[in-house]
Amino acid sequence: MKAVVRRGPRLLVADVPDAVPEAGQVVAKTLACGICGSDLHAVHHLEHTIEVGQRSGASKTLDPGQDLVMGHEFCAEILDHGPGTEKRFKPGTRVVSTPFAFGPTGPELIGFSTRYRGAFAERLVLTEALLLPVPNGLDSAAAALTEPLAVGTHAVAIGAPGERSVALVLGCGPIGLAVIVALKRRGIGPIIAADFSPARRARAERLGADIVVDPAKTSPHAAWSGFDVPATLAEMGQAQMAGRSLRDAVIFECVGVPGMLQSLMENAPPGAHVVVVGACTEDDTILPVLAINKQLRFSFVFAYSPEEFAETLHALGEGEIDPDVFLTGAVGLDETASAFERLGNPGNDVKIVVEPWR
Amino acid sequence: MKAVVRRGPRLLVADVPDAVPEAGQVVAKTLACGICGSDLHAVHHLEHTIEVGQRSGASKTLDPGQDLVMGHEFCAEILDHGPGTEKRFKPGTRVVSTPFAFGPTGPELIGFSTRYRGAFAERLVLTEALLLPVPNGLDSAAAALTEPLAVGTHAVAIGAPGERSVALVLGCGPIGLAVIVALKRRGIGPIIAADFSPARRARAERLGADIVVDPAKTSPHAAWSGFDVPATLAEMGQAQMAGRSLRDAVIFECVGVPGMLQSLMENAPPGAHVVVVGACTEDDTILPVLAINKQLRFSFVFAYSPEEFAETLHALGEGEIDPDVFLTGAVGLDETASAFERLGNPGNDVKIVVEPWR
Repeated sequence: MKAVVRRGPRLLVADVPDAVPEAGQVVAKTLACGICGSDLHAVHHLEHTIEVGQRSGASKTLDPGQDLVMGHEFCAEILDHGPGTEKRFKPGTRVVSTPFAFGPTGPELIGFSTRYRGAFAERLVLTEALLLPVPNGLDSAAAALTEPLAVGTHAVAIGAPGERSVALVLGCGPIGLAVIVALKRRGIGPIIAADFSPARRARAERLGADIVVDPAKTSPHAAWSGFDVPATLAEMGQAQMAGRSLRDAVIFECVGVPGMLQSLMENAPPGAHVVVVGACTEDDTILPVLAINKQLRFSFVFAYSPEEFAETLHALGEGEIDPDVFLTGAVGLDETASAFERLGNPGNDVKIVVEPWR
Repeated sequence: MKAVVRRGPRLLVADVPDAVPEAGQVVAKTLACGICGSDLHAVHHLEHTIEVGQRSGASKTLDPGQDLVMGHEFCAEILDHGPGTEKRFKPGTRVVSTPFAFGPTGPELIGFSTRYRGAFAERLVLTEALLLPVPNGLDSAAAALTEPLAVGTHAVAIGAPGERSVALVLGCGPIGLAVIVALKRRGIGPIIAADFSPARRARAERLGADIVVDPAKTSPHAAWSGFDVPATLAEMGQAQMAGRSLRDAVIFECVGVPGMLQSLMENAPPGAHVVVVGACTEDDTILPVLAINKQLRFSFVFAYSPEEFAETLHALGEGEIDPDVFLTGAVGLDETASAFERLGNPGNDVKIVVEPWR
């Protein structure tokens, strides 16, 4: 079958062995699979991603010397069942699932595993037990948004904003926008959103961000004062003594480049809870005593729970999320490499899906 | 009156203007005042402390060019009341209080303020509304431990360990030991404690630490596996799927030097909650993606609430805390400078109190 493979730091279309389901697996036809920032990163930095994964305790399931088929934000159609399956869904059923497979050494990430190829391919194998049928005739490209949107669902669950919280979303790429979606679904506001790109700021506004900031012109932190968030610990203490309840800040860091965490230590309001969703893969410098003085919290988050994933799919199926704010392009396998290039300098793009059947 | 003053990066005994209470204040005789790590740091790095404080949003209440009287871990005896006081406690009453005063520009930290001198002096002014009488005839040096012990009370409250938590305390100086006290009072265990100093490890054991580790010989993180704390996210996920509940890690970082946070990102168990109590005042380098991959949380903490302070004093008064594990010396004003030197290289010392009446 045809697939887009990463061979060294290049993407090309190649013939790969067909997808053959093992025990408990199905084989499925890829209908749509989004290109993720981690895919873009892995093209050039796969060795570093593997090294960091192993330092984080992951098993080695990826040989960077072999062709890698990426793609973990997929919607697919069941073609056939492997041995030992319950055949819960008929062939022809459209499904999504969390991108996990259970290999001989433990869980593996579909699309970042040599054994379990991702969905930038005509077909892929999936774990039957994890399959969720696409509800309500939801479009396949929209269903493929379940995975990145679930990242926002999880980040907001960990951030746990309350009625009195003011949210700031730094970076309005796919993940920042997914966070805004999750905040709106919980009824949290006001939401301040910041991005250098006017196109992305416009999308944040479409999703309901209340204040949208160009950080090249204004500090996103200038907006706190308008919402009764304390500027200093002293102000916080004085308000407490006066029995006046101030609002608290929940900040979603969705950029993931060096300097963001130190900027937050310098500029976040005292007592802020920072949810770090953007994965900074380079060494970063911080001055910890600033975070001590301001009693900041940093929750680093990754992925989602199965429940958060299912709940996000349900919300998409119910029409509670507008997929058109995210979907900015669809390409076949032959155009995937150039789509990666487009996303490296995204302009108006947010999410491009690969549709291998094109 | 006599006081120990910091003049440039030196400590000396000098005559300073007498302590005169303003509205709402009392004047008190210092009975005992502990020497804190932040005092040691400020002798040589006061300008940096001030700069970092201002970057954290603190008002400037400290002129490093003027003599500074430090000392914020005090027990004192009320001598007289200033104007506009309620005279809640008679002269002769022994009291402690959180080290705050309310100046014209907001709260100031007694002992780190040019206006409100600290307790390395014969007398000091205190805010009447904050005074707590020393209960049950508790020794004055022990009562002076309320402040550093309250830091441990607060750190454990923020760490919020549960029945199934395993605690690791990194660094068994006064603050690490205060954390162990607070963990034991909450019935949390097992407690793993690590320090390079055999004397401090022995004190951690006296306070009830279950496993005491010399990090020069063994990684403190080697102990997790014995307590059913997962080593990897995969192990965590597999246990969840098997319906087996693993224990979670709560780590108290009480060292505060560069490299500690990165070491935790590398070595902490997945999902660990790190409470950062040690204030690293230098730039520090981290690789944030490790914390993302392992979904770590970092709560930076400072000081305590008035309730935590009062509750800590109560526990001391009830004999629930053994002050002798902490108190390793008492000196007069003349010996304070050499006590600072002793604590710079502490050996068997934990807390030395200054007793200006000696």
